[in-house]
Amino acid sequence: MLSQPDFHLDSRLAADTEPVGRLHLSLVRLMNDMTYPWVILVPQRADLREIVDLNPADRLLLMEEIAHVSTGMRVLFEPDKLNVAAIGNLVSQLHIHIVARYTRDAAWPAPVWGRAPAIPYAPDVLAERLGAVRGALNLPQP
Amino acid sequence: MLSQPDFHLDSRLAADTEPVGRLHLSLVRLMNDMTYPWVILVPQRADLREIVDLNPADRLLLMEEIAHVSTGMRVLFEPDKLNVAAIGNLVSQLHIHIVARYTRDAAWPAPVWGRAPAIPYAPDVLAERLGAVRGALNLPQP
Repeated sequence: MLSQPDFHLDSRLAADTEPVGRLHLSLVRLMNDMTYPWVILVPQRADLREIVDLNPADRLLLMEEIAHVSTGMRVLFEPDKLNVAAIGNLVSQLHIHIVARYTRDAAWPAPVWGRAPAIPYAPDVLAERLGAVRGALNLPQP
Repeated sequence: MLSQPDFHLDSRLAADTEPVGRLHLSLVRLMNDMTYPWVILVPQRADLREIVDLNPADRLLLMEEIAHVSTGMRVLFEPDKLNVAAIGNLVSQLHIHIVARYTRDAAWPAPVWGRAPAIPYAPDVLAERLGAVRGALNLPQP
């Protein structure tokens, strides 16, 4: 486990997302927005803002985790396109969005950021969705 | 040089950008939009839509090229934030955006995609900008 003792998940990221699990480098969190299948990866490193702030070994690990999560999202949700992005204009803690997009979704073809407010999942739907994502990513069920 | 014989730059990407140079895997192109310092990386591989479509070795190379270009953009433009993204909703050929963002720029804090129409550089400013980016990325001047 590569989490550093001084790593703390940003409070706004924590509020907007639900925990899926933990990869070697990154936390995986589900955006609590039923509008899109949408997860974020948060490298467990303190004081990072940019991908290039990661050391070279961590950068390569991040790329492998992006690929792993992308594959799982593609198998599970069969999207028309994946959007993979490190934006961070609102929350500076480094986090990478992986969003499953459909040509019929609410924002298509625009990006999802800064569009309609999030629509939280109902609790039972959220639990089912978290379980499905964990399954697709080979992460343990709690 | 890793360009494949069957790789062709998408015509819309070609129309919207100007050539900066060629890294080992990716073409580097400058978006012809003076609103933001903005480049794209285009891996020279045919028929790619997603980062995860790259083979593992190419993915790691892409990450190193993202880091190299990010570093150059940061040194040259001193942005408040970098936005790094593979969206591809409009142009499906895999390309990675690296945008230097400022808290005073036209779209902040929103992402740049799908905002105001591009404002092309004047020819002399474009030539100077291309030269500066090549310098920052250690790419040869033509």
